[in-house]
Amino acid sequence: MKAIDKLITKFDKELHICVGLDSDLNKIPKHLLEDTEPILKFNKAIINATKKYAAAYKLNLAFYEKDGIKGLQTLEKTVSEIPDDILIIGDAKRGDIGNTSQMYASSLFDHFKFDASTLHPYMGRDSLQPFLDYTDKLNFVLVLTSNPGSSDFEKQKLSNGKFVYQEVLDKVNQWNQNNNCGIVFGATNTAELEENISMFKNMPVLLPGVGSQGGDLEKVVEIFRINNNNNFLINVSRALIYTDNTVQFAEAASEKLIEYNFTVSQLKSN
Amino acid sequence: MKAIDKLITKFDKELHICVGLDSDLNKIPKHLLEDTEPILKFNKAIINATKKYAAAYKLNLAFYEKDGIKGLQTLEKTVSEIPDDILIIGDAKRGDIGNTSQMYASSLFDHFKFDASTLHPYMGRDSLQPFLDYTDKLNFVLVLTSNPGSSDFEKQKLSNGKFVYQEVLDKVNQWNQNNNCGIVFGATNTAELEENISMFKNMPVLLPGVGSQGGDLEKVVEIFRINNNNNFLINVSRALIYTDNTVQFAEAASEKLIEYNFTVSQLKSN
Repeated sequence: MKAIDKLITKFDKELHICVGLDSDLNKIPKHLLEDTEPILKFNKAIINATKKYAAAYKLNLAFYEKDGIKGLQTLEKTVSEIPDDILIIGDAKRGDIGNTSQMYASSLFDHFKFDASTLHPYMGRDSLQPFLDYTDKLNFVLVLTSNPGSSDFEKQKLSNGKFVYQEVLDKVNQWNQNNNCGIVFGATNTAELEENISMFKNMPVLLPGVGSQGGDLEKVVEIFRINNNNNFLINVSRALIYTDNTVQFAEAASEKLIEYNFTVSQLKSN
Repeated sequence: MKAIDKLITKFDKELHICVGLDSDLNKIPKHLLEDTEPILKFNKAIINATKKYAAAYKLNLAFYEKDGIKGLQTLEKTVSEIPDDILIIGDAKRGDIGNTSQMYASSLFDHFKFDASTLHPYMGRDSLQPFLDYTDKLNFVLVLTSNPGSSDFEKQKLSNGKFVYQEVLDKVNQWNQNNNCGIVFGATNTAELEENISMFKNMPVLLPGVGSQGGDLEKVVEIFRINNNNNFLINVSRALIYTDNTVQFAEAASEKLIEYNFTVSQLKSN
């Protein structure tokens, strides 16, 4: 199944929450630390408890790379635990010259079996092309991020009247010839979301920043609803997977996800 | 020894060439493929033959990540082969929100023991800060890259009259409070180099693009010489490590590096 189709199938079922597996030894329930592979045990439990209700999973590569080889083993095993019909995003934020980008693409898609990537636009088209050449995969390009530093460059105004992030949005639209591009748009930027959503066309939008970073779920869903755009994927990481730190952590995460789904579907039917 | 001091010591000895270990199974001499760890064998031979003449080594992480766990083992072993007084750059081009960036920094600096990183500026200051907090390390921020796509965003003009890449250069100067920032400036952009070199201040400059990408070594060195700037580190990867594909490959790379050094020192003394 093409990556985009996995996602659309979930959107059609009113599932819009991406479970971010930002799994961290310092934050998972203490009782898991006795296990030989605590992060894997945590991820497996979360996946098992949430897979019926998740629109996608996102694995932030930093959380795994930091443990070196052991971390990558956990990453590989985690990916293999996720059912084949659910989109798996390798949140790696890569971007490099062509021959290097080709290797990153191969690493994420061929080796680690991710369905989707996240990409830095700074170096321009040829730095993204090797990813775009994987026509069955999905590539979420950073447009406007959720962090304070988005004002340093992304929100700078160009002499053509557009902001830098709008220039990125326009170019990604042009480069989306294989219908395999998405965009990252921070949920903390609701004013900009309202202003630019008509330019998203049919590209799926990954929205980080809800939960710990303070993004407003209600407002975000309302903006998509008003604009008859169903292609939104809201990522929640810490606020979901660390709901509870007892032996009930996975059930608690699942309940939290169901709550999120209920909130989203209520907001959509307004 | 602080990362910046390792580099300055080499610059003082008129060593300005960074050996890029973009080691690729498809390009290394065929006779090495019989070994159980061909890339490691290749890297060890190159390092041994070039370590007296190299200003730094740069390992492009994509080339190792693409082989997954095995690749990372090769990466770790390669880093441990490089003498402690030579700067080792982890060319990873990372950039993410604060807590994630912290993990990437820890991965590169604490786990893999790199002296220096390369970073994407797009997400702004807080995405770089965890790297900048490692005061003994060095962080080369992408300013203007060597690839054609640099015209897509980097060379766009802002409403304040500066190009995007110039805005990045200015901000990196402001953020360099720990004297541990450097910049990446593609050697293919000699006109822009000439125009902006006075703004580099004392930051070391990593210049990729000489060799396979067509950057002009002579012109680059001349610009630095005229501006009395000695802080330039010219990366050569493919054009150096793949000079020869016989059993003499390492000696050939060493001779090629000595040639580059001779050219640079001749140009400097003009």
